[in-house]
Amino acid sequence: MGSLTTNETSALIASDRVEGTAVRRPNGDSIGRIERLMIEKASGKVVYAVMSFGGFLGIGEGYYTIPWSTLRFAPEMDAYILDLTEEQLRAAPPASAEGNDPSFDRGWEEHVHQYFKATPYWSV
Amino acid sequence: MGSLTTNETSALIASDRVEGTAVRRPNGDSIGRIERLMIEKASGKVVYAVMSFGGFLGIGEGYYTIPWSTLRFAPEMDAYILDLTEEQLRAAPPASAEGNDPSFDRGWEEHVHQYFKATPYWSV
Repeated sequence: MGSLTTNETSALIASDRVEGTAVRRPNGDSIGRIERLMIEKASGKVVYAVMSFGGFLGIGEGYYTIPWSTLRFAPEMDAYILDLTEEQLRAAPPASAEGNDPSFDRGWEEHVHQYFKATPYWSV
Repeated sequence: MGSLTTNETSALIASDRVEGTAVRRPNGDSIGRIERLMIEKASGKVVYAVMSFGGFLGIGEGYYTIPWSTLRFAPEMDAYILDLTEEQLRAAPPASAEGNDPSFDRGWEEHVHQYFKATPYWSV
């Protein structure tokens, strides 16, 4: 059925190109990988990346939901960079009270954006 | 490693929830399904959906790259709706001159947005 190989240009990137991409600290340490993007329906904007992690820094396994604006892509590493210290990663909000799934309610969103020092997407 | 089941809320939707979702005409006819989203790197905005189709209306198989603003989600059908007539679908720009992969250069983008009567995302 033909090829469908253009998953990135200088200006655009495919969702399935982002999914699975590594997340690293600025020094190159592997933190995890991106599982999915969360898109605001009304605006079509990517607002979060859901990142899985496992077995690093003794933190265990789980997911972080990270404001999209917090991540930057580093082509030379083929990875997204999350610039947090080990201590900040340990304390990052991984989940809602219910388990690994965030609630995505506004209180949770405010907490996450404050933690990651990100400008709330709903205020811009 | 815990669950990660929240792929949709009233305001947000996950990229891997959109991928694979059916595309239908307003009357319910199946047209194809969404393969991937194309995201503008600079803004984080979803700007295209790449839709695969095959064996309908005698058009054959291939891909359309559709401006995201052209699609609307219909929860009652669990599908994205593309409101084009059969003739419009037949004539829709499926590909670049090189084959099934669009070039995504600005000339191609202008042509596609004109065809689908979509407001260019780079002008808003």
